[in-house]
Amino acid sequence: MDMLDLVKKTRSIRRFKENERISGQKIRQLVNLGRLSASANNLQPLRYMISNEPEKNSRIFPALSWAGKLEDWDEPREGERPAAYIVILGDPEISDYLEYDCGIACQSILLGAARQGIGGCIMGALDRNYLEDTLDIDDKYEILVTLALGYPAEDIKIDEVEEGDLSYYRDDSDVHHVPKLKLDEVILG
Amino acid sequence: MDMLDLVKKTRSIRRFKENERISGQKIRQLVNLGRLSASANNLQPLRYMISNEPEKNSRIFPALSWAGKLEDWDEPREGERPAAYIVILGDPEISDYLEYDCGIACQSILLGAARQGIGGCIMGALDRNYLEDTLDIDDKYEILVTLALGYPAEDIKIDEVEEGDLSYYRDDSDVHHVPKLKLDEVILG
Repeated sequence: MDMLDLVKKTRSIRRFKENERISGQKIRQLVNLGRLSASANNLQPLRYMISNEPEKNSRIFPALSWAGKLEDWDEPREGERPAAYIVILGDPEISDYLEYDCGIACQSILLGAARQGIGGCIMGALDRNYLEDTLDIDDKYEILVTLALGYPAEDIKIDEVEEGDLSYYRDDSDVHHVPKLKLDEVILG
Repeated sequence: MDMLDLVKKTRSIRRFKENERISGQKIRQLVNLGRLSASANNLQPLRYMISNEPEKNSRIFPALSWAGKLEDWDEPREGERPAAYIVILGDPEISDYLEYDCGIACQSILLGAARQGIGGCIMGALDRNYLEDTLDIDDKYEILVTLALGYPAEDIKIDEVEEGDLSYYRDDSDVHHVPKLKLDEVILG
């Protein structure tokens, strides 16, 4: 698959085949893609916590706020929830560029996941106090994002647009649409 | 090439075959990978400025600070400077998550570049006032990073380490070494 097709395929997935488990080995391989990616000054401030079994997943799920732009949908129902999570932590004592580094690592992980047919969503709207408590996270870390992962149970389509409302939406056939500004809209000068 | 090999190959390159030009078409294709990547709430706050011709490149070059960790090397000499640049801007009126979005887009672009044998470096240490002036950048944008791009003129090796000094360095054979924490060091719990 060429890079353009892979990037197009790497959409934010919010409904999963929850019961198609993802092995711990596979998730470690995904984290490895993040680990080997660039970080500012090579300081490597990111740390990863993994979950891929139902009990731990069920403790992480309540920390997540889903798809603020979808008015008629609050969260995936049972059976369509993520099969695994990677919680990404940053140590602010190590680097001032946690968000850049996190974005870089997330994209390596999600491209690698998509390559294997695994979908994911970068979730930043989190109940961080709850998550810190339920996962017993050392408070020296900032909880940056949580990656929700699983085999996709939804179809997503990219729409090319020139301007206006960029909110994603679901159509009558339950297809999720993602409007993207055309290339000439984002290249200046 | 599988994703692990591609991520390993996508290192921060700082010396280039400056005279091997990169076409505008090719750079637009790289920006397109950033454009189609995820952004927080799909708000798409990033904008891109491109340079791939010598005169404009020579105006961008003085804005960049290179490789703070290399004591004996200040910057690439003439002939080893980038053949192209992508300056990434963010509109803070559109989104509060510019740094995450920028990291995501940068990694799509640099993986896509590496796939074609093009190397790059995400440069955050910039003289932003100078750059804004020389490129006539609207001050509503934040200048986030500049991607330096070109065909690599250096070899890079990843070293697996457990802890300690993570500074990159060049060995006696002029090979650039990048120490990376082992997987078990970055996965917690």
